[in-house]
Amino acid sequence: MIVILKPNPNRDQLDSLIAWLQEKGVVIHTSVGEHSTILGLVGDTSQLDADLIAALDIVEGVRRIQEPYKKANRKFHPEDTVVQVGNTQVGGGNLTLMAGPCSVESEEQVVAIAKAVKASGATLLRGGAFKPRTSPYSFQGLGAMGLEFLKVARQETGLPIVTELMDMSQLPLFKDVDLIQIGARNMQNFDLLKAVGQQDKPVMIKRGMSATYEEWLMSAEYVMAGGNPNVILCERGVRTFETYTRNTLDITAIPVLRKLTHLPIIIDPSHAAGKSWLVDPLARGAVAAGCDGLLIEVHNDPATALCDGPQSLRPEVFDTLARKLLTLHETMKTLEG
Amino acid sequence: MIVILKPNPNRDQLDSLIAWLQEKGVVIHTSVGEHSTILGLVGDTSQLDADLIAALDIVEGVRRIQEPYKKANRKFHPEDTVVQVGNTQVGGGNLTLMAGPCSVESEEQVVAIAKAVKASGATLLRGGAFKPRTSPYSFQGLGAMGLEFLKVARQETGLPIVTELMDMSQLPLFKDVDLIQIGARNMQNFDLLKAVGQQDKPVMIKRGMSATYEEWLMSAEYVMAGGNPNVILCERGVRTFETYTRNTLDITAIPVLRKLTHLPIIIDPSHAAGKSWLVDPLARGAVAAGCDGLLIEVHNDPATALCDGPQSLRPEVFDTLARKLLTLHETMKTLEG
Amino acid sequence: MIVILKPNPNRDQLDSLIAWLQEKGVVIHTSVGEHSTILGLVGDTSQLDADLIAALDIVEGVRRIQEPYKKANRKFHPEDTVVQVGNTQVGGGNLTLMAGPCSVESEEQVVAIAKAVKASGATLLRGGAFKPRTSPYSFQGLGAMGLEFLKVARQETGLPIVTELMDMSQLPLFKDVDLIQIGARNMQNFDLLKAVGQQDKPVMIKRGMSATYEEWLMSAEYVMAGGNPNVILCERGVRTFETYTRNTLDITAIPVLRKLTHLPIIIDPSHAAGKSWLVDPLARGAVAAGCDGLLIEVHNDPATALCDGPQSLRPEVFDTLARKLLTLHETMKTLEG
Amino acid sequence: MIVILKPNPNRDQLDSLIAWLQEKGVVIHTSVGEHSTILGLVGDTSQLDADLIAALDIVEGVRRIQEPYKKANRKFHPEDTVVQVGNTQVGGGNLTLMAGPCSVESEEQVVAIAKAVKASGATLLRGGAFKPRTSPYSFQGLGAMGLEFLKVARQETGLPIVTELMDMSQLPLFKDVDLIQIGARNMQNFDLLKAVGQQDKPVMIKRGMSATYEEWLMSAEYVMAGGNPNVILCERGVRTFETYTRNTLDITAIPVLRKLTHLPIIIDPSHAAGKSWLVDPLARGAVAAGCDGLLIEVHNDPATALCDGPQSLRPEVFDTLARKLLTLHETMKTLEG
Repeated sequence: MIVILKPNPNRDQLDSLIAWLQEKGVVIHTSVGEHSTILGLVGDTSQLDADLIAALDIVEGVRRIQEPYKKANRKFHPEDTVVQVGNTQVGGGNLTLMAGPCSVESEEQVVAIAKAVKASGATLLRGGAFKPRTSPYSFQGLGAMGLEFLKVARQETGLPIVTELMDMSQLPLFKDVDLIQIGARNMQNFDLLKAVGQQDKPVMIKRGMSATYEEWLMSAEYVMAGGNPNVILCERGVRTFETYTRNTLDITAIPVLRKLTHLPIIIDPSHAAGKSWLVDPLARGAVAAGCDGLLIEVHNDPATALCDGPQSLRPEVFDTLARKLLTLHETMKTLEG
Repeated sequence: MIVILKPNPNRDQLDSLIAWLQEKGVVIHTSVGEHSTILGLVGDTSQLDADLIAALDIVEGVRRIQEPYKKANRKFHPEDTVVQVGNTQVGGGNLTLMAGPCSVESEEQVVAIAKAVKASGATLLRGGAFKPRTSPYSFQGLGAMGLEFLKVARQETGLPIVTELMDMSQLPLFKDVDLIQIGARNMQNFDLLKAVGQQDKPVMIKRGMSATYEEWLMSAEYVMAGGNPNVILCERGVRTFETYTRNTLDITAIPVLRKLTHLPIIIDPSHAAGKSWLVDPLARGAVAAGCDGLLIEVHNDPATALCDGPQSLRPEVFDTLARKLLTLHETMKTLEG
Repeated sequence: MIVILKPNPNRDQLDSLIAWLQEKGVVIHTSVGEHSTILGLVGDTSQLDADLIAALDIVEGVRRIQEPYKKANRKFHPEDTVVQVGNTQVGGGNLTLMAGPCSVESEEQVVAIAKAVKASGATLLRGGAFKPRTSPYSFQGLGAMGLEFLKVARQETGLPIVTELMDMSQLPLFKDVDLIQIGARNMQNFDLLKAVGQQDKPVMIKRGMSATYEEWLMSAEYVMAGGNPNVILCERGVRTFETYTRNTLDITAIPVLRKLTHLPIIIDPSHAAGKSWLVDPLARGAVAAGCDGLLIEVHNDPATALCDGPQSLRPEVFDTLARKLLTLHETMKTLEG
Repeated sequence: MIVILKPNPNRDQLDSLIAWLQEKGVVIHTSVGEHSTILGLVGDTSQLDADLIAALDIVEGVRRIQEPYKKANRKFHPEDTVVQVGNTQVGGGNLTLMAGPCSVESEEQVVAIAKAVKASGATLLRGGAFKPRTSPYSFQGLGAMGLEFLKVARQETGLPIVTELMDMSQLPLFKDVDLIQIGARNMQNFDLLKAVGQQDKPVMIKRGMSATYEEWLMSAEYVMAGGNPNVILCERGVRTFETYTRNTLDITAIPVLRKLTHLPIIIDPSHAAGKSWLVDPLARGAVAAGCDGLLIEVHNDPATALCDGPQSLRPEVFDTLARKLLTLHETMKTLEG
């Protein structure tokens, strides 16, 4: 951490700052310049509050040098993390296809879709039972019954299931779920992150709509700090000024996160675009850029889906896409050596 | 609602759309143009899912005409809502000053600050007991004990208290709080909004960091739809590309919300700016633009505050500011006639 | 265009609005609902000023139905435009690689790089002679001499050249350039757009840093309205809240523009990322998503480049990447059928 | 400037970096920590290219300490700059009201509006002759004839005139204009900035739609580096996700710029909001927050204005507002002591 002092700092205040920093076990290197004096703080600065130091009268500014996350940081954990989800593995060179309906609507629906997507190559079944909806007047999901239908579909197909947890009070219902999804709107619901950090199921954290990489990784850090190392990151588009699409998919997240963290990276082209005809090109781009998997909405009757129909693919369209993506993934492996 | 059809729509699909809309009790006016046909839907269109209709093969686009919120909508509730909070009223021509520390740190601290801000003209005491922090390694608040210290301060000063609720599991602890704050990061934590909608304490909803006015009002609608009409809105800055300040305060929210809704509007210049020296000019601007009140951080020792010190005012600085703001509010009343 | 009237509009004002609209040759369909009356305007509404109508006392709002661009609109020009640039074609199924240094520094430098990138498969040479720099104290480019060096490199390699025009006063110097680039900061420099619309060299328009697709297409429309149909669009990242990268590359632009317009779409991963190690994965993603070409910075000594060194690839790195991208492009053609 | 080295940097590369920095006249302080080594560069670092250093193999990152602007920087010019514009002064405690039509439409129109706004207290007449319009099919302004009408209005009222310059080729026509406006879309048209820097008329630079304070001040620096110290800054709203208003007015710019620079700060509430009924509350907020003046659109017949009608005030509405703002400005002076 670097502390830039204002010109001619009050000597007493400077001495008391230095004493306080030394007490924290930090070694201080001082550089005196013509216009400003700089303190270089060396040691474990993670417990220092940069904002607090910046607020001191004698301080012009503070610059952080180290990332504020540790357990999620590739620097301290160089190997890729591979997360075991039921009978499948996320990360480690696989291309994981998670597919299924936005909302679970009935046992028949989810079983039929599960069978279809499995046949196309999906290895995880997604489906919403508890649904975050902008309007209190919209369909809020089947809740506990939706979870039961997902379990039936798992029994019929063997596909592990991933579904969204919206509040920690629902956690007991999720003890039989294979992968817990934290939605974009809850990315900084810190109590929820703590709760899933204190249990042992894998957790997939969607990026908040206007979150930076660092904020997202700090949310992963919350879960990991609680003792749960099985975290997957899912990019689902960020908010930009463009209104033609619902959000703007950020594929740069793939190589950047690959460098910053060891956690697997999944891409959700369905929610990012909000339009089914964009899922195919975005999924292709994400695979070519090196993601570990995709989360894709598939519905047997998108036009009458209870939610998010516009972005769902019919099973036959998903089938063509899935085969193309798996081939592309193999090609990329060859090209990348 | 307006439905724009693609050129030469399939006749059968069009008939089935029209039949389905009529079944919903909607009257349809058709305008046939050279390039496109337009359906004007008249009646209660609030239960129609615009995205679903937009997903149909024959539909080019859908334009909503009416706001999706009702209980929060001034069109259906023309008079200003005045919210009773303990012994004070928010809205209705008052300028409410809510002041206090970011975090409750000790009984002595919060009582001392409460006495000071009351003497300066504040009518509500703010203070955080449960704190949303970006890092799991930062101080997370005193929790239940912090609430107890706030109650002591209320007893000593008579000031009603406002504090943040982070998870519905904490709700039993809040039964003696006067005003429940929902933080910006929880603005779309829909389960939490439902929970505070089903109890009767007033609720102050902070705007999400990148939320639109409509999304914010839909969050108010969640609380009101649950049966709780006592909602206050609090603007605390939106995220922009500017990194000099923490966020960018949006004072346009004041006149726009005044038109769209009947709910009171509070401004938080402390969190918006993240720098104490900006609180004064921003608070002045907000009062002149017509807000119902301000939420201001005051700390007796900002440089050693456990969180958010940089944006806190010392009690003597708040005293000068509070007097200035109350005078300015009176001037504005005179000028606005 | 749809005009939504306020409840109980003043009858005289409504009559005068209707008369004025009819005078403009527009046919009006009126839908009277319980809460609002809607006017559906049919005919050529492109010359109506929506904002002007929205400002009338009796009007609640206006919704546009048609895109405001025509010449750039695929609806009125269904076939892909292929732009001839010197001896090469942009669009039409090719993958065009435009490569070269950010800034032209010397004849030797640009000739050497031109030879290298040609050998790797590039078909256009890029290089900046006039440079837009944020600081007046930074290197501003070699100007006219830089253009001369580019021409020498063209003579030596046969590669057509693309370089940025910053002001219309420089246009006479560009009469021997093959493709004129309009930079992101000048995307809405309307006088410059008009000037390049009135000459016949092809023009490549970079997307403004926070421009929407529609604003970008309107800039293409400016050039085309002047009589020059040879326009290429270049996505180079949009501004988001992420500060880790310079900008965020928007590959969704590829399929969306493919639908909205017939113009070729080039992707610039170098400027988007601002970091050379991100160029490879972003370029792969862009090719897989279906772009017509890439604009890539190549420098023989990035660490001492006079500008933008951090994002330049060494020729040998570009060589590997170019071969990979051309193979990937062939694979995509096979996969897409 | 601070250079953070990667762990175990190559010794030869480090020596060559240090030699190169010393050659530039910079003094280097080295701090060796457990995880990283930090170089503190002291002296005139303004000519060092931070991005270039950041691109070196051995460098992890670079942090700037000093602002990149000098002439616009209050640190090196502590007193407020007061800009003489014709017979009036901008800055120095005045509240300057610049008012007039968005577009000059006829001599009668602009003379009538000029007389009205002068009577209400305006001291500068604004009016557009060359108009930046998003669509090539919209009215582009009266051009040179519009400038003539503005001069007639000046002759009739004595009000100095401010109008927008869009391209340096128009500069000869502007030799009789009192204040040259650079529009938001041209804020980074560097050739235009250089051109107005090399002449001596005062220049008002509008903030780009998504520009940071630093980028805006760098544009002022371009003009000042050319030799013209008479620069005024004008905030006109930044782009946010909110679509209810055209842009979001950033009043935080007022106190922040007051600290960073000595140049006067004008606020344009008309363009920011895009709705006439928002001009009053936003203008009040801006005056209370301490701006040096306002730029307000006034039109005698907003509903038939050739452009931007929706945000124009009628003269009688402006009259009430102007008196209110001047009173508020006096009150603020008293309150601020």
